Amino acid sequence: MDCRCAALNLKGIAYEDAFHHLRRGEQRDPAYQELNRQGLVPTLEIDGKVLVQSLSILDYLDETRPDPPLLPADPAARARVRALAQIVACDIHPIDNLRVLNYLRKTLHQPEDAIERWYNAWIADGFYAIEAMLASTSETGRFCHGDNITIADICLIPQVVNARNFDLDLTPFPTLQRIYEAAMENPAFVKAMPSNQKDFE
Amino acid sequence: MDCRCAALNLKGIAYEDAFHHLRRGEQRDPAYQELNRQGLVPTLEIDGKVLVQSLSILDYLDETRPDPPLLPADPAARARVRALAQIVACDIHPIDNLRVLNYLRKTLHQPEDAIERWYNAWIADGFYAIEAMLASTSETGRFCHGDNITIADICLIPQVVNARNFDLDLTPFPTLQRIYEAAMENPAFVKAMPSNQKDFE
Repeated sequence: MDCRCAALNLKGIAYEDAFHHLRRGEQRDPAYQELNRQGLVPTLEIDGKVLVQSLSILDYLDETRPDPPLLPADPAARARVRALAQIVACDIHPIDNLRVLNYLRKTLHQPEDAIERWYNAWIADGFYAIEAMLASTSETGRFCHGDNITIADICLIPQVVNARNFDLDLTPFPTLQRIYEAAMENPAFVKAMPSNQKDFE
Repeated sequence: MDCRCAALNLKGIAYEDAFHHLRRGEQRDPAYQELNRQGLVPTLEIDGKVLVQSLSILDYLDETRPDPPLLPADPAARARVRALAQIVACDIHPIDNLRVLNYLRKTLHQPEDAIERWYNAWIADGFYAIEAMLASTSETGRFCHGDNITIADICLIPQVVNARNFDLDLTPFPTLQRIYEAAMENPAFVKAMPSNQKDFE
């Protein structure tokens, strides 16, 4: 699952509008080619702009389409939600990114079982931190912050999907499991499941 | 250099107010102990709240102390600034974090020269992406976005300081070098240099 898809679904933005033919653009646009050469693959084309970096895209969507909001109004609550999202987006996802796994494989000659332990270690580390933050306060509700979906859930749920795919033991993370189950009752997340989003690249 | 120090200096917030005795708190507060046990070390105590995650802290400071602003007003410009900041905060910093380097050392038994190549590889990768984004548009000014300091500069400059300490060749990154030199003329960055900030932990 991709966090951008879940956010687009929640905001009621059709994928066709948002992800139109980046690959065709790739052949024409020197700026795109340069970004791509540098490994900075554009990740959302919207409003005539090509945006990169998932967290930045979530903020852009929330600032330009504020209904429903993906962040609470209070600055301290926003900081809590952003911190939860960033544990996934900074402390799990980049370390388990394909380019890092390929460095382990090709440059450090690590076998596949070591790669798998690496992958699961950083998910588990991040999940312990998130579970501790969620379980320690009544600010946590049906979702990561109260009963409304925020960018914390949007970042977290795809990572729980990954963990389930890799058979990570989720027993130590009961709050994450509960929030995952709540999210799976929401069509925005169901539609964003990899099996249900054929047009996304 | 720490991005939080640069932001606090720019906002005119004294460190003493912001970083008071987290270690003393550690011995008393069970919530802190739990977070710390999970590897989620609190990184800023301010307004009676303990905040984690650097990007979240920068947003909190900007939302509660809007003068001078660390983000432009236009949503697309904000997205560009956030994306630049996140290349550092998501795609460089977490992969070169101490816990990852220690995993390479202790679990994967990598020698120190391999650790150093790893460290520099991810800085260079991110710097190529940032240089491409900065050099390709007139939105770049004296700093990453126009002539005012934003969170993009606040995240980038400490990483340039790291790269210089590790003798990374900065020749391929002329725009980054120019912005680093501009930042070094600003007391907020000079005061945030590691040698000039003894009270920070």
